[in-house]
Amino acid sequence: MTEGRERAPELDLELAAVLHALGDPVRLALVRRMAELGESACSPDGLVVPRSTLSNHWRILREAGLTTTRQEGKNRIMALRRAELDARFPGLLAAVLGGP
Amino acid sequence: MTEGRERAPELDLELAAVLHALGDPVRLALVRRMAELGESACSPDGLVVPRSTLSNHWRILREAGLTTTRQEGKNRIMALRRAELDARFPGLLAAVLGGP
Repeated sequence: MTEGRERAPELDLELAAVLHALGDPVRLALVRRMAELGESACSPDGLVVPRSTLSNHWRILREAGLTTTRQEGKNRIMALRRAELDARFPGLLAAVLGGP
Repeated sequence: MTEGRERAPELDLELAAVLHALGDPVRLALVRRMAELGESACSPDGLVVPRSTLSNHWRILREAGLTTTRQEGKNRIMALRRAELDARFPGLLAAVLGGP
């Protein structure tokens, strides 16, 4: 090594938050569903998860910047911010969604 | 919708574990360092993190399959399992490391 000390590595908080949001099997399933269908109701069919747990998952996805929410009557409809994510983290969503 | 009920979505536990392992700013910094330098000592320069916290981060990376460990004298040296990860999750590491 030619230098006595390297610079402190940058901590990438925004990317870490996105990866953390994606790093749960239920949230991954929600993201996949939105990628396939365009959007998702708050409690989609086929996911046997308590409503309060789902709300928490949606909150984590929203706070990490992965989703938008719109109200439709009494329902909230979530959508993936795909264009923004692809611009900010090129290739990330494709790699995640391309998985098995 | 043409179907009354969709199939239950698959839960992708392995990918979720890898994303969870990457979803922390300190672990991201460790992974970046290994990607740049080939490997990393347990307590690299420039990361001001308690040793016990670092040990926990290394454990999470190892258990998710991201790293290998070898002993060198009294030190453990960690390396990224890049080829395996690229084969299992094409494009994922490149997207993560290509970040800002």
